[in-house]
Amino acid sequence: MLIILRQGAAPEKIEHLEDWFQNQGLDTYKIIGEKQSLMAVLGGAGHIDADWVRSLDIVESVQRISKPYTLVSRDNHPEDTVIEVGDVKIGGGDFTFFAGPCSVESHETLLTIANGIKDGAQILRGGAFKPRTSPYAFQGMGREGIEILEEVKKETGMPLVSEIMDVSQLPLFENVDIIQVGARNMQNYELLKALGKIEKPIFLKRGFSSTLQEFLMSAEYILSEGNPNVILCERGIRTFETATRNTLDLSAVPLLKEKSHLPVVVDPSHACGMARLVKPMALAAAACGADGLMVEVHTAPDRAVSDASQAILPETFNSIVEDVHKILAALK
Amino acid sequence: MLIILRQGAAPEKIEHLEDWFQNQGLDTYKIIGEKQSLMAVLGGAGHIDADWVRSLDIVESVQRISKPYTLVSRDNHPEDTVIEVGDVKIGGGDFTFFAGPCSVESHETLLTIANGIKDGAQILRGGAFKPRTSPYAFQGMGREGIEILEEVKKETGMPLVSEIMDVSQLPLFENVDIIQVGARNMQNYELLKALGKIEKPIFLKRGFSSTLQEFLMSAEYILSEGNPNVILCERGIRTFETATRNTLDLSAVPLLKEKSHLPVVVDPSHACGMARLVKPMALAAAACGADGLMVEVHTAPDRAVSDASQAILPETFNSIVEDVHKILAALK
Amino acid sequence: MLIILRQGAAPEKIEHLEDWFQNQGLDTYKIIGEKQSLMAVLGGAGHIDADWVRSLDIVESVQRISKPYTLVSRDNHPEDTVIEVGDVKIGGGDFTFFAGPCSVESHETLLTIANGIKDGAQILRGGAFKPRTSPYAFQGMGREGIEILEEVKKETGMPLVSEIMDVSQLPLFENVDIIQVGARNMQNYELLKALGKIEKPIFLKRGFSSTLQEFLMSAEYILSEGNPNVILCERGIRTFETATRNTLDLSAVPLLKEKSHLPVVVDPSHACGMARLVKPMALAAAACGADGLMVEVHTAPDRAVSDASQAILPETFNSIVEDVHKILAALK
Amino acid sequence: MLIILRQGAAPEKIEHLEDWFQNQGLDTYKIIGEKQSLMAVLGGAGHIDADWVRSLDIVESVQRISKPYTLVSRDNHPEDTVIEVGDVKIGGGDFTFFAGPCSVESHETLLTIANGIKDGAQILRGGAFKPRTSPYAFQGMGREGIEILEEVKKETGMPLVSEIMDVSQLPLFENVDIIQVGARNMQNYELLKALGKIEKPIFLKRGFSSTLQEFLMSAEYILSEGNPNVILCERGIRTFETATRNTLDLSAVPLLKEKSHLPVVVDPSHACGMARLVKPMALAAAACGADGLMVEVHTAPDRAVSDASQAILPETFNSIVEDVHKILAALK
Repeated sequence: MLIILRQGAAPEKIEHLEDWFQNQGLDTYKIIGEKQSLMAVLGGAGHIDADWVRSLDIVESVQRISKPYTLVSRDNHPEDTVIEVGDVKIGGGDFTFFAGPCSVESHETLLTIANGIKDGAQILRGGAFKPRTSPYAFQGMGREGIEILEEVKKETGMPLVSEIMDVSQLPLFENVDIIQVGARNMQNYELLKALGKIEKPIFLKRGFSSTLQEFLMSAEYILSEGNPNVILCERGIRTFETATRNTLDLSAVPLLKEKSHLPVVVDPSHACGMARLVKPMALAAAACGADGLMVEVHTAPDRAVSDASQAILPETFNSIVEDVHKILAALK
Repeated sequence: MLIILRQGAAPEKIEHLEDWFQNQGLDTYKIIGEKQSLMAVLGGAGHIDADWVRSLDIVESVQRISKPYTLVSRDNHPEDTVIEVGDVKIGGGDFTFFAGPCSVESHETLLTIANGIKDGAQILRGGAFKPRTSPYAFQGMGREGIEILEEVKKETGMPLVSEIMDVSQLPLFENVDIIQVGARNMQNYELLKALGKIEKPIFLKRGFSSTLQEFLMSAEYILSEGNPNVILCERGIRTFETATRNTLDLSAVPLLKEKSHLPVVVDPSHACGMARLVKPMALAAAACGADGLMVEVHTAPDRAVSDASQAILPETFNSIVEDVHKILAALK
Repeated sequence: MLIILRQGAAPEKIEHLEDWFQNQGLDTYKIIGEKQSLMAVLGGAGHIDADWVRSLDIVESVQRISKPYTLVSRDNHPEDTVIEVGDVKIGGGDFTFFAGPCSVESHETLLTIANGIKDGAQILRGGAFKPRTSPYAFQGMGREGIEILEEVKKETGMPLVSEIMDVSQLPLFENVDIIQVGARNMQNYELLKALGKIEKPIFLKRGFSSTLQEFLMSAEYILSEGNPNVILCERGIRTFETATRNTLDLSAVPLLKEKSHLPVVVDPSHACGMARLVKPMALAAAACGADGLMVEVHTAPDRAVSDASQAILPETFNSIVEDVHKILAALK
Repeated sequence: MLIILRQGAAPEKIEHLEDWFQNQGLDTYKIIGEKQSLMAVLGGAGHIDADWVRSLDIVESVQRISKPYTLVSRDNHPEDTVIEVGDVKIGGGDFTFFAGPCSVESHETLLTIANGIKDGAQILRGGAFKPRTSPYAFQGMGREGIEILEEVKKETGMPLVSEIMDVSQLPLFENVDIIQVGARNMQNYELLKALGKIEKPIFLKRGFSSTLQEFLMSAEYILSEGNPNVILCERGIRTFETATRNTLDLSAVPLLKEKSHLPVVVDPSHACGMARLVKPMALAAAACGADGLMVEVHTAPDRAVSDASQAILPETFNSIVEDVHKILAALK
């Protein structure tokens, strides 16, 4: 930990701080600059609360030397983590498509979509529990939705990924192959700890205002409880721009792959919130090194506006798959 | 709901959309503009998913006409909600101080702090369960921390507010008068629904990247399950500025009090992350109409750096209380 | 213009507002909703100050129906604008590379770099006038820098793009083929108006906190004065994330190309601020439809740290050019 | 400058970097941490481009030890700067009101407003040159507007503050007592340098996405050219929140006054964009230590909607003045 001390900080207070660190078995080094002093704290200051140190009157700013995460760090685990679900390999050179409707609506719809995408997609997604900003909005089919997912899994052979909202729902996810944690729950630490105690792969979405470091720390929560199978998903961050629902931060892909060994995928559907942006953003994600894409796909013959939705149609999805493979082949 | 349709949107698709709305019992009105068409949807479009409509290819943008929240809205409940905890009244003209340490550390420390602040503060705060970005950081004393809070409540007579992290912890909060939901859990809908089923006042912190509307919708979750006792707390939002931990958004105070009847308080401690900013921001909050302040106060005789922490000392706290009352008196 | 009026807005005030619009020759339509009224203003409300209307006490919110920009809009100019500089065509299907050092340092350095990149790059960039956050930092070689650029242009035949900081510098830019407006000057309207009065192509960088709409409005300033030759450049926006200098917003590419006929290029160097991110982001930009890339390239034999800079080396640049062409070929 | 080097950085590259610093007369200190090395560079690294160092492959992050600004820093100038305009003193304990319409519209209107506010306001504001996002919007009365300002100054005795858009307009500002630089021009360095060469007080508005450090650096540009008379104005920053036009960042007040000796005022009008928020935010600004307020005031007998504008009426302004004085008196 590197601490820049404020100009004119009283020597006795600086000494107190040094003593405090030393009493915890840490080594301190002071360097006297032109006008300010600085202090380096070494020997394992990872557990020291940087925010607390930062708040001290005598402290100008604080910078960590060692990274706060270890298990997710590529520094400790240089090879890519490859997560296996049946025959599907996620990470480590393979490119995986997770596709399906945002919400499970009926057995018939889900089956139709699954059949429409199963050539291009390896994992079927569908939400039974939906996080809704409004308490009056449709919250998902719940248990019934899970049952429909399980049926379609049997019928198509496609493994499942679905979102969990609360620890209490865990028993329902028996046959769900990959459990998804939504952006709003990225810092639901109790949920993360519980998911860290099981073995199933966890599909962790980046909080829409979470830094990459906070994202990796949330993954660290899961790994620290014993579950090494985490898939990181960039899905757009909140910014001042209002033309899109979120701003897709593709630089997260190479950065996360550099800092961590975990697979990194991208969800262009929820990021942009517009059907017509899904394809260009999906291709961009593939071009910059993502390990996969999660795409919202829907067919809605019953709905009059079916050909104009955010969720793209299977045809569009399949053309995305095709072009992604062309890009990957070109860059090999 | 107001929908601006994209230029050149096919008439048949517009009709389809109209039919879709009408089939749900809604009234639609089309206005043909210079180059684009627009559609107003009336009669209760509150439950329609604006994001879904927004994503339609033929749609340029969507604006709601009616507010998505009703129970929290002052439109439906013009008088201030006053929440009573023992003799303490929160909201409706009274000014309430919630103060105490961030974490409960020991019975002795908590009692010392409580005695130092009980003249100025009405409610004692202290965290037994701490949301930590790192799984390796101190997560709070848990049950033991709650027990210490209960002891000090008996000894001082001060009602308690403390943060809950998960629904499963609810039984432990029997003697906690006000249950706090932290910023990271503002969109933990399962937790909000559970808290909506009890009667105890809920201290709801704004998510650090949540809009005021999302904030009110989260409060709506609680009210919609039957619990009318929600205190809204502004605690700073995440922005590009790095000089402070968050940016305290004081305009939230008059805006929330205009849109909602719920009491609105401010937490300047967590917002700014710097002891020396707590007082000016506290006074500013009082001057612009807040119903109260939540302030982090600590005495730490054991710790060498006690006189230089983010948590302010009781003396500073009491001087804040004094100046706040001067401001309130001056503005009466 | 669509105006949602606040609940309980006094009828006389609403009438006043209607009269005000009608007195300017505009048509107004009122729709009475459940609890609020709304007003549509048609017939050319483009010049009405939306912020002023938005600020009215009786107004809840304001939405424009027609776009505030016309000349830059693809609605009015469906075909791509192709900007010609000598034999180089920018936009309309061609992919253009603008490359070179951030600052011009010496004739020798610039010539070396130009020779290293001229196979892959069509336009040579180099800054003579640098926008520096600090008044004490190197502000660029000024006139001398321009002269060096002109020399190297003669020696290599490469057209030039260079940044202008103020209208008064315009005479110096005689032999600069494309004049660049930096992010900090995107809303320097006097400068934009002056550049709109000449014919030379203008390379307009998006302000680091400018919305796409503001970006297009700045381009509109230039076109409205008579200069149709504007190249739009996305270079990252300011967000809460600190891992990168800015967040590259690639969704700007398809969105700008949809809204406008102007060519859209991407600067991944200034966006990310890290050499190792330039290649992945460059490939992503090509994959999502950009018309070109502006890349910072440097060779620095004199500097001991030459092989580790943000500016990438010619070898890396050329490998980016190669891979970009592979992607473009694959997607054709 | 503190540099954290990336793990596994090659020792030769670290040495190269050290040599590079030493060749510029700087002292370097290496500290070998658990897994990484760090380097402190002392002896005046202020002019080194932190962004360039940050971009080096071997560098993890960079932190400055000494502040990049000196002339504006309270470290070098402990006493408050007091700016005198006639009998008016700005800063150093006095509270100054700058008020008037956003744009100068006519002599009659300006005189009416000036007469309505001259008891409470010390400085009259009015814009002759308006920065407009749209080239089609009213750009201000220009020279004629300045003449009207000068007339009213003679008639009322009120000193003037007005916004300049470009260096070329400087001759017109002869009789304008304080020259304002708008948010969009905060990084128009050529303009700042020109204004640094004159003696007149400069009213510098914070860029809507500028950090406090960038803000102070822009002030440093002016002081470095010789003009010590700068008034800093916080006017809201751009965030994700859409309920207000900007988010007023009041923590900027105590922070700027701590870091700098320059007077700090607040513009609540442009920050919030809503008449009904001006008063609460003005009182909050006074309560947290601002040296003054800039408020938009208008009377508009001609306009049917005069009593419902963002610009508040003189009566409201005067009630703000009254309450501000009550707060200041209470806190003395």
